[in-house]
Amino acid sequence: MDLFTPLLRQSELTAIFSDRQTVQSMLDFEAALARAEAKCGVIPVEAVAAIGRACKVENIALAALAQSAADAGNLAIPLVKQLTANVKAQDTQAARYVHWGATSQDVIDSGWVLQLREALNATDKRLNAVLRSLAAQVEKHSATVMPGRTWMQHALPITFGLKLAGTLDALLRWQSRLHEMRERVLVLQFGGAAGTLASLNADGPAVAAQLARELDLTLADTPWHSQRDRLLDVGHWYAGVCATLGKFANDFSLLMQTEVAEVSEPVVAGRGGSSAMPHKRNPVGCAAILTAVQRMPGLMATLYASQLQQHERALGGWQAEWEVLPDLLTLAGGVLVQSEQLIAGMQVDSQKMRKDLEITHGLIMAESVTLALAAFIGKQEAHHLVESLCHRALDEKRPLQQLLENDPRITTHLHSDDITTLLDPSRATGSATHFVRQVLARYQEQCHVASLSD
Amino acid sequence: MDLFTPLLRQSELTAIFSDRQTVQSMLDFEAALARAEAKCGVIPVEAVAAIGRACKVENIALAALAQSAADAGNLAIPLVKQLTANVKAQDTQAARYVHWGATSQDVIDSGWVLQLREALNATDKRLNAVLRSLAAQVEKHSATVMPGRTWMQHALPITFGLKLAGTLDALLRWQSRLHEMRERVLVLQFGGAAGTLASLNADGPAVAAQLARELDLTLADTPWHSQRDRLLDVGHWYAGVCATLGKFANDFSLLMQTEVAEVSEPVVAGRGGSSAMPHKRNPVGCAAILTAVQRMPGLMATLYASQLQQHERALGGWQAEWEVLPDLLTLAGGVLVQSEQLIAGMQVDSQKMRKDLEITHGLIMAESVTLALAAFIGKQEAHHLVESLCHRALDEKRPLQQLLENDPRITTHLHSDDITTLLDPSRATGSATHFVRQVLARYQEQCHVASLSD
Amino acid sequence: MDLFTPLLRQSELTAIFSDRQTVQSMLDFEAALARAEAKCGVIPVEAVAAIGRACKVENIALAALAQSAADAGNLAIPLVKQLTANVKAQDTQAARYVHWGATSQDVIDSGWVLQLREALNATDKRLNAVLRSLAAQVEKHSATVMPGRTWMQHALPITFGLKLAGTLDALLRWQSRLHEMRERVLVLQFGGAAGTLASLNADGPAVAAQLARELDLTLADTPWHSQRDRLLDVGHWYAGVCATLGKFANDFSLLMQTEVAEVSEPVVAGRGGSSAMPHKRNPVGCAAILTAVQRMPGLMATLYASQLQQHERALGGWQAEWEVLPDLLTLAGGVLVQSEQLIAGMQVDSQKMRKDLEITHGLIMAESVTLALAAFIGKQEAHHLVESLCHRALDEKRPLQQLLENDPRITTHLHSDDITTLLDPSRATGSATHFVRQVLARYQEQCHVASLSD
Amino acid sequence: MDLFTPLLRQSELTAIFSDRQTVQSMLDFEAALARAEAKCGVIPVEAVAAIGRACKVENIALAALAQSAADAGNLAIPLVKQLTANVKAQDTQAARYVHWGATSQDVIDSGWVLQLREALNATDKRLNAVLRSLAAQVEKHSATVMPGRTWMQHALPITFGLKLAGTLDALLRWQSRLHEMRERVLVLQFGGAAGTLASLNADGPAVAAQLARELDLTLADTPWHSQRDRLLDVGHWYAGVCATLGKFANDFSLLMQTEVAEVSEPVVAGRGGSSAMPHKRNPVGCAAILTAVQRMPGLMATLYASQLQQHERALGGWQAEWEVLPDLLTLAGGVLVQSEQLIAGMQVDSQKMRKDLEITHGLIMAESVTLALAAFIGKQEAHHLVESLCHRALDEKRPLQQLLENDPRITTHLHSDDITTLLDPSRATGSATHFVRQVLARYQEQCHVASLSD
Repeated sequence: MDLFTPLLRQSELTAIFSDRQTVQSMLDFEAALARAEAKCGVIPVEAVAAIGRACKVENIALAALAQSAADAGNLAIPLVKQLTANVKAQDTQAARYVHWGATSQDVIDSGWVLQLREALNATDKRLNAVLRSLAAQVEKHSATVMPGRTWMQHALPITFGLKLAGTLDALLRWQSRLHEMRERVLVLQFGGAAGTLASLNADGPAVAAQLARELDLTLADTPWHSQRDRLLDVGHWYAGVCATLGKFANDFSLLMQTEVAEVSEPVVAGRGGSSAMPHKRNPVGCAAILTAVQRMPGLMATLYASQLQQHERALGGWQAEWEVLPDLLTLAGGVLVQSEQLIAGMQVDSQKMRKDLEITHGLIMAESVTLALAAFIGKQEAHHLVESLCHRALDEKRPLQQLLENDPRITTHLHSDDITTLLDPSRATGSATHFVRQVLARYQEQCHVASLSD
Repeated sequence: MDLFTPLLRQSELTAIFSDRQTVQSMLDFEAALARAEAKCGVIPVEAVAAIGRACKVENIALAALAQSAADAGNLAIPLVKQLTANVKAQDTQAARYVHWGATSQDVIDSGWVLQLREALNATDKRLNAVLRSLAAQVEKHSATVMPGRTWMQHALPITFGLKLAGTLDALLRWQSRLHEMRERVLVLQFGGAAGTLASLNADGPAVAAQLARELDLTLADTPWHSQRDRLLDVGHWYAGVCATLGKFANDFSLLMQTEVAEVSEPVVAGRGGSSAMPHKRNPVGCAAILTAVQRMPGLMATLYASQLQQHERALGGWQAEWEVLPDLLTLAGGVLVQSEQLIAGMQVDSQKMRKDLEITHGLIMAESVTLALAAFIGKQEAHHLVESLCHRALDEKRPLQQLLENDPRITTHLHSDDITTLLDPSRATGSATHFVRQVLARYQEQCHVASLSD
Repeated sequence: MDLFTPLLRQSELTAIFSDRQTVQSMLDFEAALARAEAKCGVIPVEAVAAIGRACKVENIALAALAQSAADAGNLAIPLVKQLTANVKAQDTQAARYVHWGATSQDVIDSGWVLQLREALNATDKRLNAVLRSLAAQVEKHSATVMPGRTWMQHALPITFGLKLAGTLDALLRWQSRLHEMRERVLVLQFGGAAGTLASLNADGPAVAAQLARELDLTLADTPWHSQRDRLLDVGHWYAGVCATLGKFANDFSLLMQTEVAEVSEPVVAGRGGSSAMPHKRNPVGCAAILTAVQRMPGLMATLYASQLQQHERALGGWQAEWEVLPDLLTLAGGVLVQSEQLIAGMQVDSQKMRKDLEITHGLIMAESVTLALAAFIGKQEAHHLVESLCHRALDEKRPLQQLLENDPRITTHLHSDDITTLLDPSRATGSATHFVRQVLARYQEQCHVASLSD
Repeated sequence: MDLFTPLLRQSELTAIFSDRQTVQSMLDFEAALARAEAKCGVIPVEAVAAIGRACKVENIALAALAQSAADAGNLAIPLVKQLTANVKAQDTQAARYVHWGATSQDVIDSGWVLQLREALNATDKRLNAVLRSLAAQVEKHSATVMPGRTWMQHALPITFGLKLAGTLDALLRWQSRLHEMRERVLVLQFGGAAGTLASLNADGPAVAAQLARELDLTLADTPWHSQRDRLLDVGHWYAGVCATLGKFANDFSLLMQTEVAEVSEPVVAGRGGSSAMPHKRNPVGCAAILTAVQRMPGLMATLYASQLQQHERALGGWQAEWEVLPDLLTLAGGVLVQSEQLIAGMQVDSQKMRKDLEITHGLIMAESVTLALAAFIGKQEAHHLVESLCHRALDEKRPLQQLLENDPRITTHLHSDDITTLLDPSRATGSATHFVRQVLARYQEQCHVASLSD
């Protein structure tokens, strides 16, 4: 199904996990295997060139490959058949050494790791771009006051910068995790039929080491045919970063509701209209993000369950990864790209934010009054008193300030201008700026390191 | 990704949910809408023919459609645009009346329901075929004795017929549920922009009724733009029937293990080999089934979560259905086809089954000895005594019969030939035949009804 | 963990699935088994009374039971031990016949089915109460006009009655499904050690039939020790009805946002306050519902995966049901009770609903203008023209009416008072009333039938 | 529900997440908050002692607390009420300063982090114990030859040591991840009502820093009320390590099947029996592990979905963590304890392993013949030839050796004693020993570092 690819999977990752690239990565493994084995004296040096020349996806009949995979149970068996035939047509001797000593899962998993390396590189860049745009918005809006909302009700004033900084902070953690994970997952798979490299006799370790060098992958301590925790980590990372961006998009769509209208998506001609309602500007970017994010819990549930792979090669669990991982990663790619566009181009209506602070006629500032009062009459009593005035304000739709100024239990302790000051939202954002500065400093530090390591 | 389609999605359902068929179903809705509205006097009769002629997927540029959907947020908006342009090229007047009064979700959901009808029909046939093959195998193996296994340990003898009858029984329940569900889900979606059909003024109900007739769908009491329980039921049915077939395939693969080897998959040339090990006959059919079944919990998790669709049209939940439902149904189609082949062609080694009953040197028959003994010394004492002899038999690797015949606590109550009889598995299958007959009778009854209703 | 039980599991179902009731239901099975076997002449009639007297949860040491279950792997083994010891203390002979011919899973599953019957009865009543309250609210608000919202943006006017009717319609479907499911799931489990009732020899079917009568359960065609589709259906029903109520609670919490404030939860003293903010009225009921609903996809994912139970008794899949099903059902019980309170007592601010229709300065009525215009210039051109005016209205914050009345492309076709009429929301709810009437009629019919069948 | 606690949750973690400990951890936060605020001059020093004395779970009425939480929507509000009342009874002045400046989520989340620290410490020890036992078994069985199994069919010989080393390798990775994660998650939550610490005015950062010191937690750059990625990581770690151990238990139960019987669970009196079948030794430990592991995908699905927490405090997502995280962690605790027992005490029948290698009459050695032959006639031709002989061996139930020795296409290239050598499994474990040594070296290195850091 390709109809939803542009909507949901608009990133480099979609090409990386295309059918063609999947097959090419497997062929890259086969070519490298031949080189490594020739260097180790396991196969004749003469075979390398012919095998290498044949290892191009252009030479493979993909539809026939897919069809044969239905009988073989995996892609490697028919791919090796086609490849061997192609080599044979050029060089009968060389054809004998195709896929020498390897098993289907070696080529499938290592091919996947090669794709994964491309994906992680692309993802790192995309994440950096998101971080950059977001850090700029945090800075820009560090003094933009707006209602903080808890339980989907106005709570206290915050700054839009602080709200954005929460996401930036989380994304910086995901960046750290990405770098930690990277090393652990970019490993060669090479174990032969049952993970012992038996077919290479004593040459196993040397070939494996050379093959890892050829492909620039880490050498694992032991084949991981049925130990899939590394891939689980990859899934978790992508699902996790999507969850963070999904929280952002969900908040964004809440802020974009007609009644709230504190932000809106970047305006792009032809985007977000309705077939029936000419006035609609639908949050199409948020929808695309949320749709993809909605998939993550289910895809991850499958990956966790798929970890229980039987013995030395599984029946169901391994195979389930073949569609799930590309599905998950290409959806995540879409989320990153859509988020980058959303964050970089979002429209912020700071006046509406300021205005929304007044909706509750001062109730949003009730906590500061309570705390000021608490110094005189204790926290619980103060809470109780202000709460009752708030309920009156709500019931009678009167400003809290009026009720406070007319209540002797209040005015005994607080003057009218104290009350005015206490009810000013812009004086009530507490440590918001402090927190924002800390997150931006972390961004500077971490991204400096990241750019040095590029 | 198409590389795994033949392996995992080999059924009519794959074509039914292809991109082309998805778009054609939406066009079928648009054509029927024009006819219905003309019959109700809402649009000019003259517009019908031009619109109808244009409603062919051949006229639609699919790649451009997908690309535009990324901006529009759904397929309907760009599809209506292309369709209108195509009609206009033939008949400017008619072009005015394309998609008249409908909203994107009307055409998307109703198109999906049309596809679903095809899918349910195909599924019903496939399920019937599975039932037929399975009933035949139940009958054939109603007296084939084999070890019953609990906790993956030999328990007591059963018949292979009884084992198969359990699956048949469950599948008959799924058949009943399919028929109950069918009526409930094949309903028209038609509500206009916010579910009020406001754009049709007083003509709404009449157009809706006529449109339902045109498409041969049921009329819903109210539009269901954000009430998705019917589709959830569809997902549940397919996931559920797959779970039943997955249990079967899992058991089958356990019975097919090298040490057990009581059954094997149908032998098909070129199927189930290994790239490294020439002796392997891999359970490729079971693997394909189990791979697809492995996906179901995750896909259903997404569908449950997606039910929480906001207000009159959702942001994320609705859109998540677009890939999930076709994914789920086409995987289920593959499961049905693979199961049918597996059940119809499976090889059963009844001699190996009989032989496996002797592995435990009679321990599998311990319960019958216990029960015979219990009549004399009470159930718990008998259990305790026989259990200790079983543990000795295991530890000393001696036949239970020997130990029983040499133990005066036993021989006081049971003669040697009583013991021989008690240890004969073929006399120990209890009510297995009775249960099998009951399930076959239900099959006869239910499938008679089903074939009458065809 | 009991700290969250009152918050999340406030219904009769919590007691039904308590530890005590779980054990009592198993004992009810044991007592009925003795009666049935005595009636069939399988055990002495004299044993029945002593066994029956001992089958009371008061006689069971629950903590010791739980501890022994850790070694036994299930509750039935240590329960039968305690029960046998208790019977023996009264009547040595009777003790021989405790649990005669049954297996652990017979008593565990049948006990669960007995609990399930109580649960379904309680649920049916709760659902009826929800339906009754909701039908009353639908009626009451059938003419209350409010903004319809799609993609979380104002779309067109709807009525609050229509919005509620969507939920009522879905819940009526869940009621039908409950009645269909009930018959299918209330079945006896009785198969003995491997599902053959071997230990009862030829008496198996007669004892099973009598036992079903004793417990007033349906007799299954074959034991269902590892065919769990009925329980999966139960899980699906509860998860599904929760999803429908979760959609309702989610919409409710959106409508309750400070800026929207069209509804609020029933006011109950001491409910919904904040520890820090005296003015807060948190949607505590919605939160409790949404918290429980949030669990459903994950719990169902486990149930689907657990269906793949090996052979005649499973290792992991069966056991996973023991906590998951009670967890799921007691959470669902909480959802039903909380929803009933929310629906019966909700506060509706119809003035705020009316006022919100004006937020977009008439844009919400744009579709009716488009359609009126389409009669003159065609749908697409009309859409295009009105859309551009809407964007101007948004950008310049001017009422749409003003722009329409000043645009000659409009005024050529529509007079000023046409425009006024077209922009009146209360004239624009289309077939809302028609849909509401249909749903209420269905409610009358279905609940009449339901109350007759009570 | 406590009936399954000993079976499924037998570890220190169960006590750590008990109701009592949950409340005590919240009280520890409140006491530390008073100390920190007094040190910063925010509240009077005199208040500290009275508050501290009251912060004991013994003083809290837990049932009333749970009941009030149903109205309040969380535990903190009624807990602070009870605590304040208790302090007030001793010291009216001090009572004013209870919970000063904090919000419900501060105390709930920080309390949870304190529990989490205990849990991570206990887990680290448990994991070390598992690693130690497993490393010893790897060493012990490094030369124990057994069938490697792929697709649940015999593939090639491996060693049991290699099989175990795969799990050890994965668990070593989980140990590294645990150490990486630890720092990131043990952070204070302290943000006040909307994450700005507004109620503390300029003192916010100082109090936060002091509070972090008091509790020995890391200070976060910004409050994380609705950024839950750290907790998601915790869930992922536990679910992941359980998946690795679940794979082990699943393999173990497969190896323990009656026909395979290569291993069995530690023999413990009274463990693993059957209520009906005296000879049964059920894999109760594996079942307990697999039951808990079965829950992980669903619990994680909920956690991923729960990440989308709205704005500054969520409605549903946050609350869903309250039962899910303790559920997940206590189940994981049970998995670790059960795995430790299983691994330390498992019985290995190396003779049966050796014997099983002969089941296929030499077919398991087919690959080495193929490879030897390939040197003469090329890989594909060799594969084809040996495959056909394997099929004949299977069909005619004759040893492969016989067929090889009688086939001139083979004997042209291989002598009879070559064939005998090629068919000896113990000479065919390739690099198994090499891999095992590498994993053990990693274990030595990593655990040396780990014990130094203790």
